[in-house]
Amino acid sequence: MSDTFKIHHHDTTSGARLGSLKTPHGSIETPIFMPVGTNATVKAMTSDDLADVEAQIILANTYHLYLRPGHEIVEQLGGLHRFMNWDRPILTDSGGFQVFSLGELRKISEEGVKFQSHIDGSRHFLTPELSIKIQESLGADIIMCFDECPPATADYNYVTRSLEMTTRWAQRCKNVHSRPGQQLFGIIQGGMHEDLRARSLHDICSIGFDGYALGGLSVGETKEEMYRIMASCAPMMPVDSPRYIMGIGSPEDLLEAIGHGYDMFDCVMPTRNARNGMLFTSQGRVNIKAKCHERDDSPLDPNCSCHVCRNYSRAYLRHIYRAGEILASQLNTFHNLHYFLNLMKQAREAIQANSFKVFKAQYHSQQQINQIDKGGTGL
Amino acid sequence: MSDTFKIHHHDTTSGARLGSLKTPHGSIETPIFMPVGTNATVKAMTSDDLADVEAQIILANTYHLYLRPGHEIVEQLGGLHRFMNWDRPILTDSGGFQVFSLGELRKISEEGVKFQSHIDGSRHFLTPELSIKIQESLGADIIMCFDECPPATADYNYVTRSLEMTTRWAQRCKNVHSRPGQQLFGIIQGGMHEDLRARSLHDICSIGFDGYALGGLSVGETKEEMYRIMASCAPMMPVDSPRYIMGIGSPEDLLEAIGHGYDMFDCVMPTRNARNGMLFTSQGRVNIKAKCHERDDSPLDPNCSCHVCRNYSRAYLRHIYRAGEILASQLNTFHNLHYFLNLMKQAREAIQANSFKVFKAQYHSQQQINQIDKGGTGL
Repeated sequence: MSDTFKIHHHDTTSGARLGSLKTPHGSIETPIFMPVGTNATVKAMTSDDLADVEAQIILANTYHLYLRPGHEIVEQLGGLHRFMNWDRPILTDSGGFQVFSLGELRKISEEGVKFQSHIDGSRHFLTPELSIKIQESLGADIIMCFDECPPATADYNYVTRSLEMTTRWAQRCKNVHSRPGQQLFGIIQGGMHEDLRARSLHDICSIGFDGYALGGLSVGETKEEMYRIMASCAPMMPVDSPRYIMGIGSPEDLLEAIGHGYDMFDCVMPTRNARNGMLFTSQGRVNIKAKCHERDDSPLDPNCSCHVCRNYSRAYLRHIYRAGEILASQLNTFHNLHYFLNLMKQAREAIQANSFKVFKAQYHSQQQINQIDKGGTGL
Repeated sequence: MSDTFKIHHHDTTSGARLGSLKTPHGSIETPIFMPVGTNATVKAMTSDDLADVEAQIILANTYHLYLRPGHEIVEQLGGLHRFMNWDRPILTDSGGFQVFSLGELRKISEEGVKFQSHIDGSRHFLTPELSIKIQESLGADIIMCFDECPPATADYNYVTRSLEMTTRWAQRCKNVHSRPGQQLFGIIQGGMHEDLRARSLHDICSIGFDGYALGGLSVGETKEEMYRIMASCAPMMPVDSPRYIMGIGSPEDLLEAIGHGYDMFDCVMPTRNARNGMLFTSQGRVNIKAKCHERDDSPLDPNCSCHVCRNYSRAYLRHIYRAGEILASQLNTFHNLHYFLNLMKQAREAIQANSFKVFKAQYHSQQQINQIDKGGTGL
């Protein structure tokens, strides 16, 4: 049980819960979505922009910051918050997901992972101990254990051996973690196998962490598999600790997870899709590149209060996207993050009102009706 | 003489003057620098950002907006101000400079210029009449005559024939211009030949326009040539009309021109250099990519009050530039535009105080001393 996490209300219509998590840089309200700021910047967003869309906590990537500019430089410059001019909470991942994504460029052993930088090919050796040291230097409010994240296609035996190592690595992370106030979360693996997930969950919880995350989702599995694992793990997750699903997801994924009682999420979807011209609206997803917006003077989303929807037309957003203008990334990212964060706010209100189940059902039917009506483009 | 332009003060130490120019979207104070917003966006700046750096007027490009999204679409959407969410003055150029820059892709005749789009190769025919029609559709506060802009290397005979045609084109522009409230400026050509400049100036002024611009500078000539032409034309320019030098320049160029009594300027230098990591400061120019900034916790410019200098270190600016982050373009552009617009503000204050000559000399010596002291990188 965490003394920083409080549950304020349980929705009576679902497993959803309303909580708050105290950190050295203030409290966050859960359920919450964390915009991804890989290189110590959420792409195309200033700190003021992040405050405007009411981001409460952002994520930064250990792997990227370790390679560039280097965690020692960030520490010397006063830590990540000061470096990137963000005085609210930050969570850093452990670098595990990134190094395992390197494929040919990395080699795993019990001790850690040898890998080559994607930037300059330089050789590095990342261990659980080094990951924690880097994350302590960066100084995030919440940090993650170094884990192995196998692909969705990994077989039962591989996943078994992998989660056992991840448990030993989690213990090593806990052994060396010492930064006061900084919370350390454990990561549960186990692939798409419910029994292995249960085993990993038991082992990681036995070590004891400030919060628990499901890793190894959104790695190539089907939506059905992802939802099955979410559902099967939920009843076994410690009730009084924050529950984080890493790397998800779409608005629908977030609502599904919240309904099972998960509290924290991160994903590049709103920011990456924004840069590709795919925008989320109350009327379904919009491909702003489409010809149909050429002369459309209406706002991107008539039900959205963000400064993009208040000040610019679809025609203008299409124009600057097609012209390759930086402002397109700026405005699209601002809107998409506002959309995700506002959805979380509405979800929290629905939980408080014991109406989360209805809220989720309405969201789905509204999105579907509009996609059919408008010939919108699903992702 | 213009009834919208008022001169409030003549500096007693130079030819500089303090004025104001009334437009349908408010007055601007001169001398003034106009950020360039080619595609109906000043690259990497939101409208709020432009207001924050106290931009009073911006420039947009007729050539680019004619090709994409098309002036008829912009008109249908309520004009350029509404389209780009900018309710202060806008000036559009005539497209002349851009089509003449196309080289092989264009052919000039008395009637106009045939050219192929740099975007899709489509064929177009731009005439003085069409340029005015496009600019009326876009709805800028100030528009420019369609002119031929010969390269700095053009010979005397070519420049002579060219300026004669530019005069005939200017008359054609005036003949068809009819949008109420919208001001039409004439453009003086004549290359690097003082007698041809004098002739062009006489001919264009004889037609009579709301303001007068020197075109054909910053087209490959030396700084000495540019300054010579500025100086030779200044005494012949109508005193009571706004005087605009197109396409310049560096801070030093702007101060030189202001000292001769020029009032308006535009240039991509602050915005383009920003995107390339070249930043203007009170201590000289800074190449933010340089290794020396790697661990530098100090602000880009300790004497600058912009939000970039108040909130971010040189080390952070270097980091996000090297990581290829969009935020680098955003912050660098914000700072550079703030620098240029603040320099103009200081120049206006110096004129009011009859100290422009001293101000200009101090600026030069301060910049030079610091470049030597700091090993800074001149451009």
